[in-house]
Amino acid sequence: MSSRPVLEETVKDIKTMKIRGALDIAIAAVKALDIMCMEDAHDTAALLEKLRMGARKLKSSRPTAVSLPNAVNYVMYVAEKNKDLPIHDFRKTLSFEIRKFVGEQERALETIAEIGANVMEPGDVILTHCNSDTVVSILTHAWKDAKKIEVICTESRPRYQGYLTAKALSSAGIPTTLIIDSAVHLMMKKLHVDKVIVGADTICANGDLINKIGTSQIALCAKEQDVDFIAATESIKFSPASVMGSVVEIEERDPAEVIEPGKLRGVRVLNPAFDVTDAEYISMIVTEYGVIPPQAAYHLLKEKFGWELNI
Amino acid sequence: MSSRPVLEETVKDIKTMKIRGALDIAIAAVKALDIMCMEDAHDTAALLEKLRMGARKLKSSRPTAVSLPNAVNYVMYVAEKNKDLPIHDFRKTLSFEIRKFVGEQERALETIAEIGANVMEPGDVILTHCNSDTVVSILTHAWKDAKKIEVICTESRPRYQGYLTAKALSSAGIPTTLIIDSAVHLMMKKLHVDKVIVGADTICANGDLINKIGTSQIALCAKEQDVDFIAATESIKFSPASVMGSVVEIEERDPAEVIEPGKLRGVRVLNPAFDVTDAEYISMIVTEYGVIPPQAAYHLLKEKFGWELNI
Amino acid sequence: MSSRPVLEETVKDIKTMKIRGALDIAIAAVKALDIMCMEDAHDTAALLEKLRMGARKLKSSRPTAVSLPNAVNYVMYVAEKNKDLPIHDFRKTLSFEIRKFVGEQERALETIAEIGANVMEPGDVILTHCNSDTVVSILTHAWKDAKKIEVICTESRPRYQGYLTAKALSSAGIPTTLIIDSAVHLMMKKLHVDKVIVGADTICANGDLINKIGTSQIALCAKEQDVDFIAATESIKFSPASVMGSVVEIEERDPAEVIEPGKLRGVRVLNPAFDVTDAEYISMIVTEYGVIPPQAAYHLLKEKFGWELNI
Amino acid sequence: MSSRPVLEETVKDIKTMKIRGALDIAIAAVKALDIMCMEDAHDTAALLEKLRMGARKLKSSRPTAVSLPNAVNYVMYVAEKNKDLPIHDFRKTLSFEIRKFVGEQERALETIAEIGANVMEPGDVILTHCNSDTVVSILTHAWKDAKKIEVICTESRPRYQGYLTAKALSSAGIPTTLIIDSAVHLMMKKLHVDKVIVGADTICANGDLINKIGTSQIALCAKEQDVDFIAATESIKFSPASVMGSVVEIEERDPAEVIEPGKLRGVRVLNPAFDVTDAEYISMIVTEYGVIPPQAAYHLLKEKFGWELNI
Amino acid sequence: MSSRPVLEETVKDIKTMKIRGALDIAIAAVKALDIMCMEDAHDTAALLEKLRMGARKLKSSRPTAVSLPNAVNYVMYVAEKNKDLPIHDFRKTLSFEIRKFVGEQERALETIAEIGANVMEPGDVILTHCNSDTVVSILTHAWKDAKKIEVICTESRPRYQGYLTAKALSSAGIPTTLIIDSAVHLMMKKLHVDKVIVGADTICANGDLINKIGTSQIALCAKEQDVDFIAATESIKFSPASVMGSVVEIEERDPAEVIEPGKLRGVRVLNPAFDVTDAEYISMIVTEYGVIPPQAAYHLLKEKFGWELNI
Amino acid sequence: MSSRPVLEETVKDIKTMKIRGALDIAIAAVKALDIMCMEDAHDTAALLEKLRMGARKLKSSRPTAVSLPNAVNYVMYVAEKNKDLPIHDFRKTLSFEIRKFVGEQERALETIAEIGANVMEPGDVILTHCNSDTVVSILTHAWKDAKKIEVICTESRPRYQGYLTAKALSSAGIPTTLIIDSAVHLMMKKLHVDKVIVGADTICANGDLINKIGTSQIALCAKEQDVDFIAATESIKFSPASVMGSVVEIEERDPAEVIEPGKLRGVRVLNPAFDVTDAEYISMIVTEYGVIPPQAAYHLLKEKFGWELNI
Repeated sequence: MSSRPVLEETVKDIKTMKIRGALDIAIAAVKALDIMCMEDAHDTAALLEKLRMGARKLKSSRPTAVSLPNAVNYVMYVAEKNKDLPIHDFRKTLSFEIRKFVGEQERALETIAEIGANVMEPGDVILTHCNSDTVVSILTHAWKDAKKIEVICTESRPRYQGYLTAKALSSAGIPTTLIIDSAVHLMMKKLHVDKVIVGADTICANGDLINKIGTSQIALCAKEQDVDFIAATESIKFSPASVMGSVVEIEERDPAEVIEPGKLRGVRVLNPAFDVTDAEYISMIVTEYGVIPPQAAYHLLKEKFGWELNI
Repeated sequence: MSSRPVLEETVKDIKTMKIRGALDIAIAAVKALDIMCMEDAHDTAALLEKLRMGARKLKSSRPTAVSLPNAVNYVMYVAEKNKDLPIHDFRKTLSFEIRKFVGEQERALETIAEIGANVMEPGDVILTHCNSDTVVSILTHAWKDAKKIEVICTESRPRYQGYLTAKALSSAGIPTTLIIDSAVHLMMKKLHVDKVIVGADTICANGDLINKIGTSQIALCAKEQDVDFIAATESIKFSPASVMGSVVEIEERDPAEVIEPGKLRGVRVLNPAFDVTDAEYISMIVTEYGVIPPQAAYHLLKEKFGWELNI
Repeated sequence: MSSRPVLEETVKDIKTMKIRGALDIAIAAVKALDIMCMEDAHDTAALLEKLRMGARKLKSSRPTAVSLPNAVNYVMYVAEKNKDLPIHDFRKTLSFEIRKFVGEQERALETIAEIGANVMEPGDVILTHCNSDTVVSILTHAWKDAKKIEVICTESRPRYQGYLTAKALSSAGIPTTLIIDSAVHLMMKKLHVDKVIVGADTICANGDLINKIGTSQIALCAKEQDVDFIAATESIKFSPASVMGSVVEIEERDPAEVIEPGKLRGVRVLNPAFDVTDAEYISMIVTEYGVIPPQAAYHLLKEKFGWELNI
Repeated sequence: MSSRPVLEETVKDIKTMKIRGALDIAIAAVKALDIMCMEDAHDTAALLEKLRMGARKLKSSRPTAVSLPNAVNYVMYVAEKNKDLPIHDFRKTLSFEIRKFVGEQERALETIAEIGANVMEPGDVILTHCNSDTVVSILTHAWKDAKKIEVICTESRPRYQGYLTAKALSSAGIPTTLIIDSAVHLMMKKLHVDKVIVGADTICANGDLINKIGTSQIALCAKEQDVDFIAATESIKFSPASVMGSVVEIEERDPAEVIEPGKLRGVRVLNPAFDVTDAEYISMIVTEYGVIPPQAAYHLLKEKFGWELNI
Repeated sequence: MSSRPVLEETVKDIKTMKIRGALDIAIAAVKALDIMCMEDAHDTAALLEKLRMGARKLKSSRPTAVSLPNAVNYVMYVAEKNKDLPIHDFRKTLSFEIRKFVGEQERALETIAEIGANVMEPGDVILTHCNSDTVVSILTHAWKDAKKIEVICTESRPRYQGYLTAKALSSAGIPTTLIIDSAVHLMMKKLHVDKVIVGADTICANGDLINKIGTSQIALCAKEQDVDFIAATESIKFSPASVMGSVVEIEERDPAEVIEPGKLRGVRVLNPAFDVTDAEYISMIVTEYGVIPPQAAYHLLKEKFGWELNI
Repeated sequence: MSSRPVLEETVKDIKTMKIRGALDIAIAAVKALDIMCMEDAHDTAALLEKLRMGARKLKSSRPTAVSLPNAVNYVMYVAEKNKDLPIHDFRKTLSFEIRKFVGEQERALETIAEIGANVMEPGDVILTHCNSDTVVSILTHAWKDAKKIEVICTESRPRYQGYLTAKALSSAGIPTTLIIDSAVHLMMKKLHVDKVIVGADTICANGDLINKIGTSQIALCAKEQDVDFIAATESIKFSPASVMGSVVEIEERDPAEVIEPGKLRGVRVLNPAFDVTDAEYISMIVTEYGVIPPQAAYHLLKEKFGWELNI
């Protein structure tokens, strides 16, 4: 029996966005490779060749994703390292490693919550922006650890994702305040904010953070007031393409999110979705592999995802 | 005939907010003093005493205004300086100076527009926040001077005054772009912004700027990218109370401006109207008396408004 | 009757340090000039000439003092301005102005206390260094104004003047904490310090502050954490010599203040008494003439002390 | 006799650059006004009207000069202040003030040398850029005061004016070192530079310094290493036009100064003569009226040159 | 024979502080594991299980130590890596590696001295704070290398450990100066300090340095004057707990160290022992594995101590 | 047959500078080791001993080179790792790895060009200093990728290597501008420079960059204007000696390069060839192993060149 249909289907499902979300894409891809492990093959070399082809197809199914090449590269890194094993052992080893990897990914959020909660101190006033799963998990975890924190949420124009964050934290019992995005600088000082924590869309090889528009000016405010600025994210969001020099393109979204079309005739409306926070503004990144300085992004990419230039 | 009714009426109109707006209050007050100049009096000393009493009443009619004490103090400064004149000459001199002052105030906006337009350079990309008469006047004046500028306006949550600015500039023919408040840091870099210009609610004695919430974090962005940050304002907005150490209290406005009441139960909503931009972030202040560094605020208060501590 | 004995005596008393303390020296000197006003003289020109000579003698009696030339210069500035008056009017005017000046100086501390207290906000946590009359007056005044402040005092090695400050504030009922000088950076953050306030030994023409050793590194800490750094001082401490380019020489005090002589053989012990805080680190200076930015020091020297180069 | 020929001739000589150099232009202009004082006139008002016309003509003879309007404005400021004097007294007063002003200008360099030398400390290592009369005077004056200074000169490409400075200082006996412009950052650290001192082409109303290309990056180096950065200049170089918002246009000079024409075909060569150093990088400005912070530039313009907007 | 008694005894000795000092604790713990290697066991798996239990017990004997988990983790990392060896080879390999590790630790100080001395340059003026073995070793090593350095020591209130440093350096012949902690900012400039070097209590995963109170404000001074700030420490001081997000708790010591109890009634006395220096202020860390940037702390922890999250 | 002659000859050729250039030296050295692989030897241990001796000789042939120890250490790292292989396999493996390494080095420039070109964005205005192969390759590669960039070259006194860069870029069709070194600060702002890119002489273990004199002040300008500062270099330029604490000595070149000898009698002329740019000013380093933050320099040295302290 051939595993091709699974591969092709996975590729199609990723392409058509039937499978979406950074983590789900990554897991689907490596599961497809797990099934390919069982495919007929004369020897390890032949199977490896098939896997290489599958990896290429999977990676090209969503060229702008970050988690996809990370996951696939990791599996292929393990595969290449074990290419001298007899085919049976190779299948067993690779399949085991894939399942271990999937498990790690699935537990990553929980691990980050635990580590991030350690970073929070009793009595901390914490500011967050937009809505991030990792941040909400960390803060509710800290609250359950009986750390009496308070949280300030920005509304996060234009789509007001800050409402989701405020709701989630408030429901968990955490004293929560909502402010407009423009009030960050004043309120950081007036409310004695101790820490800023945000999620991540992408972490670049040099430690720069791509995140929801508005993040970078909050980082400036934190720097000016010597407040710790923390990013919290699964390591699968670290970008291998940026190691190759690729510049993350900032998505330009529909102006209608900002203002009703036609309301301001003749006025151009720009609606960028993300911005870039330089590594120098980031105190630490909380990942499922622990707390790292942003400059260790390259290290993590190499160590965890076996990323390697073919030169 | 006594001018008391005029004084009392002006005081009442200011108190009841029938007269409002920084400039209108200032002009009404000094006009009341002008009428008092003609009041019966035995000699200059007696008239001066009446004026002093009138000045006190006027200044207490809106204790938090900035323009009111400035205008009244200026008139009284001229009055005290001429106290040795015979009463006829005193009336004539003071009345003349009051009318000159009113004229200056009425022409101030135009003068600022002209000076501010000189500061703009052909091809400049300029960012502004909220909606300021002085800023709109400067930019349209520069455009009429055939300087091919472009302007980026923030929407200015929560009340979207940026729409007014964008409309006014666009109507004048200036290429105008609208962005959300959170996009300032990214767009300042991407669109190669050359200058930021904003109005002022108040200028403090040490050069600090009180202006619409969000101004101070734009100033941080400008500093980081070495972009000139300019405030443009009539000198009547300079605060004499701050010379006495008074701290400008930041108005806390209705949370309903930010979010529909009850929408986020249990979440506190804070809605400060202004923030403070430190003098060190301000490249220059454009006033009707010319371009000054923010640290010359104290100088202007002394020179123009005869501000003096009674020690 | 000649006033010479008074002049000579005052000069001697200042030289022998019988008269000491910035304010006392200044007042003694101008009082000597007041008595000289009554000296026999043919006309105003002749009297003025005598005063000029007296002024020179007084100023040279303590060449390193700052308050002395300020006070004498101020009186001579008034004298020169009135040189066209008949001698009787001249005597009257000058004497009146001298007494007004003395009164102002004597009330200066109280005025500063009032203005400085206005700058303090309810709930402020305030850090101070060494022991300054103006600072203690401001803080106790703010406390009497029912502003619930807290104060952190440094011990201020080597002479522990911080003990005096802590005692004075604590006796006034203010919650007071004592820390070592090295703990400033940590405690400023941990205790959420809102403002730093210190006195002054000298203010230079360019706004730099000479004050008790340790002040400048506290200013660095305040800058890093965006905490307001305030100096509070009588304007008579502003240095006219620095307008002429003179560099304030930092007094090197007895090493025995630091460590028992001979305890560390072969180790050089240095014990500078003051250090220099750059104007850029100072948010404002509270004087009896109001709150000014440090860069207005030159302005105040010109306006208040009639300081003028003879070129 | 009419003084018109003198006025017309002066205007012509300035226009044709027969009279050149900031100081010479200024002095020629006010001397022309001095002669106009003696012109036939019915009364002071009539004479004043003629002077106003003359002032306008003089100022328009070299619109980009800075010293010219300063000098002319100063004289007219005195004239306007004395407009109520009888014509004889008016002539006398104005002529006297003009001659006093000319004397002050002629002594300014010497006064600056003396004040600037006070700022230098024994053992100082001082870096300078390009060739400035005021700087050379200050340094040689300090050397004559027996302050054992050392000086580092940049060569100051493209015209190597640093050679002139090095020659002058070395001839005076001062230990002098020449480096290329690019070596400033390294050498400032390696040779423990204590102060940087430069001249000025123009000082703007907000304290910014326009000076020889390369100055602003030396100021960045000084800031990074906390080295005092001092500008030394006659106050006649302070720009009144910048009070009106005028932006100093940076002169673009002949590329042939940089590279032999045709040597690099297809490569554009740009050769700007000056650059702008922000006020925040300047520790102090040494003028003939004393040491001032850059932010006092506006103050000096008002006080010394009677600069006033006609609003 | 069972090695349990050795394990239990070591645990007890660490708990009762009979064994103390970062290095001694670490060495005792791994020596206990070395003895456990020889314990009876059916196969490698069984022995490994015993070692894991021993490791847990050892690590919990002093939960706040940093060197203890580092040393134990390292040994267990080697153990786990060799778990597939036959038991005899396993014992041999592990025991060999433990002894190698102990040797490395014992030689670490000497290695750091050598590397750190390389960093020092002839003629350097060096400032240090408190008393650190690594720093004293580096400086005396540099002196023996004939580098003519000079050293400034702070007294290091409240316990004056600076005296120990000054004594040690002075005895070694190095020209040594003692200053109070508050004089750092002034003296760094006046004495042209080239480098600051301090020891470490703990290095965090993101490169932050925990060291004797006062260190962080010295780092601010060094940054402001662009002076290199160097930490020198054995890698065993790098904190694995901080990788897990744990925040180092700053020890609050007895106020009696600061001031005689009761001397200042009603005044709270706080006496924190350490403070935190952000990674951005640290030029480099000298370890026995070479010079690293602070951001490589995470890298070293992973590479040297086999630290791994069990996720 | 003995490979000694090859070793001795290579050592001699490097010593006599017959072989020169960082890359050529490195390749010659490892090729000599490749030949030594084939030398007669009883077993792997014996061969390894010979190789160790050869490595030592090669490394000492040019003690100040950076590429030489990197290349030799890498080969020896591979050799030591394979010391347990039978001699035949050992020879084969080592020889294979050496050839792979040589290939990588030879392809490194091309790889860097490709990665660096990815970093460039369409429309970028890029500033470069001096003349660097990697920079020219990156920029021409970006141009071939149809990215419409513009480049500003400094002339790079004293030897005008900027001419070479300008010529190369202009010949490739890139719009190129030449400026003097002093014009960087002004032009960076006026021409809206987006990125600075330079080569490297050496990268230190803590991420500092040693490069052509003038580089560090360009980095200051870039920081002030928030412009990305990029270094591009083969990883073989990373300095292993700096891991050991060695400070890179800045070469002092002939003053005659700066000015004709004797032209300025009595003036000392200093001509340093390089300066040091702190890691904090560097946004990223482009290497053949991808984009890294400067703080990953230590990581790369360890990973790629097997650099290890023998402690």
